[in-house]
Amino acid sequence: MAQNPPITSASFFVGKSGDGIISFGSGQPDLPPPKEIYEILPTYKAFKYGLIQGQQNLREALAKHYPNADPDNFVITNGASEALDLIFRVLSNPKEPDNRVLLPRPYYYSYPFVIQFAGMETVYTDLIDGRIDLADFKEKIKGCRAVLINSPSNPTGRVEDIETLKAIEKLCGELGVYIISDEVYKDLIYERENYLIKGDHVITVNSFSKTYAMCGFRVGYLYSPDKALVQKTIEMKVHTSMNTNILGQEMAYEATKVPRSFIDSQVAVWKERRDILYQGLLDLGFDLWKPEGAFYVFPKIKNSNRVVNELYYDHKVITYDGAWFGDPDRIRLSYALDVEKIQEGLLRIKEYLQGKENLL
Amino acid sequence: MAQNPPITSASFFVGKSGDGIISFGSGQPDLPPPKEIYEILPTYKAFKYGLIQGQQNLREALAKHYPNADPDNFVITNGASEALDLIFRVLSNPKEPDNRVLLPRPYYYSYPFVIQFAGMETVYTDLIDGRIDLADFKEKIKGCRAVLINSPSNPTGRVEDIETLKAIEKLCGELGVYIISDEVYKDLIYERENYLIKGDHVITVNSFSKTYAMCGFRVGYLYSPDKALVQKTIEMKVHTSMNTNILGQEMAYEATKVPRSFIDSQVAVWKERRDILYQGLLDLGFDLWKPEGAFYVFPKIKNSNRVVNELYYDHKVITYDGAWFGDPDRIRLSYALDVEKIQEGLLRIKEYLQGKENLL
Repeated sequence: MAQNPPITSASFFVGKSGDGIISFGSGQPDLPPPKEIYEILPTYKAFKYGLIQGQQNLREALAKHYPNADPDNFVITNGASEALDLIFRVLSNPKEPDNRVLLPRPYYYSYPFVIQFAGMETVYTDLIDGRIDLADFKEKIKGCRAVLINSPSNPTGRVEDIETLKAIEKLCGELGVYIISDEVYKDLIYERENYLIKGDHVITVNSFSKTYAMCGFRVGYLYSPDKALVQKTIEMKVHTSMNTNILGQEMAYEATKVPRSFIDSQVAVWKERRDILYQGLLDLGFDLWKPEGAFYVFPKIKNSNRVVNELYYDHKVITYDGAWFGDPDRIRLSYALDVEKIQEGLLRIKEYLQGKENLL
Repeated sequence: MAQNPPITSASFFVGKSGDGIISFGSGQPDLPPPKEIYEILPTYKAFKYGLIQGQQNLREALAKHYPNADPDNFVITNGASEALDLIFRVLSNPKEPDNRVLLPRPYYYSYPFVIQFAGMETVYTDLIDGRIDLADFKEKIKGCRAVLINSPSNPTGRVEDIETLKAIEKLCGELGVYIISDEVYKDLIYERENYLIKGDHVITVNSFSKTYAMCGFRVGYLYSPDKALVQKTIEMKVHTSMNTNILGQEMAYEATKVPRSFIDSQVAVWKERRDILYQGLLDLGFDLWKPEGAFYVFPKIKNSNRVVNELYYDHKVITYDGAWFGDPDRIRLSYALDVEKIQEGLLRIKEYLQGKENLL
């Protein structure tokens, strides 16, 4: 059974720094969004319902980034979260025996929940060294209606092998299995080439949260070449939330016009932080993968729950328990905080580990 | 089976006037929101995730309007739509035999869908002359887990009798049945007193869309004295959409500070329009209830589907088919348009009806 992160402890979950707390917790950029998104605010006056599928200008801008796409291939959602929630609800049919979703583990903690909320069953395939085990995948994909891929991955920070992604694309195409490809970190890559899964049965999920630091505005989207599926999603959203906030969409549209150099300069900052945190944890004796994308490290540690609690209560350092992500022998650290804080956090972790080297 | 409104025809559904079209369609205010909600925009700079349950200042402001409430009794949602969707998903348990919701008919068209999406079954109780039939209600409430009340009602424009609401409150309290009270029109009342249902098993749903003309910003909320239920709702929302748009919430917070005179002046405008449309339709020979709240009339007419189509294609008048609301012998007209347009629309309907008096 998937574990719920401790959202009751709101400040812990949101990962607010302050009061001397160093937070490696929340997965959100601390660098601000492009200034252009605020420039439309002073003169903004709209207030009426928008189109359920999302505003035309934003969908037109997005369509330019997908081959052969047009605006009717998109639905703008309340973040990637709602896109995932909607698509599993649309795909679910509890009366069918294949009402299952294959999920690589470790996973982003919301995945098992949205699958379960939709009345679908989760089938897990365990990663080997942070990468999909194609043999196990091929075995378990049989009898599944869909698979959920997240590359670059939260929490592993890994970017999946291109050959693996192409093999999955081919296999699922042959079997008629839907691929839900959560690509919210696709622009935050430091190593290797990436590959974006394509095909008639592919539903791509993305958002403005990570690339443009717009987490709080909750603008995401789904894209699919299958317009009937897109239409079904719209027909669900009209009842479950109606249009996504119209002003958030206009701000997202402004973000689409920002030059690529904005993203490049953010990636340079992330890469510097990654190097410091990755090397710092290596130096402390941690066993961890070198992050290739996103902004997380996921080092091994025994008794992760105890470690997370002791780091928080005794050293004011927030980390997330790997158990929330399906791996109880690791902790997740986000590097969405400035270099000075990363270094201070590393010092505190070093202090904590003194005499506890057996945990590593 | 509930009918889906024709959202594929986006301009029809959104009810855009223009091109000489008179739209009695969409249920959204045409009068602008209070100007204060825009005054915070020029200096707004936030961008991070907000609390899943909603911003503290907004929940504190709302708590002042509910007796013995505190901010932890509230969840801020993407409009009333998401509040309804979340609460039925939280209340649903398909393994229990009482996984049913009692719904007065005619109903707002999304209700049967969100109930069905949550895996619950809808049990209908037909209104008599636009009011709840307490005898039928008492019979059918047995074996239901929840009932959904919407007073003032979309589409009927009726405000339920206070005695009826109190009887329902008492009966459901005794039976342990949850009451979901959708009160989005509670501030738009022209006749009679209103009564807001209270009690431990009551979940109140409201939004800023109708009272403050903020439809497009999608800020709603649910309130319940049952904090465990509120917590369950938050634990679902963290996975399905995360926080509601942070800027929309700040704008809603500004709206809470606007004096009551704003609402009073809006209600005066609605009442004038109601009088003109109600009298106009009476003069044309329609059989209809006098609206007591909200901004809809729901006159009887035969062949409602044909009428809606002919009015649109031959006379450029948008109305909604009563069948979408569970009553195929009526059409719904919103009076969220200015007096001049209402009068022009009435003229066109008069023209349409010539030789078709048998439809009335």
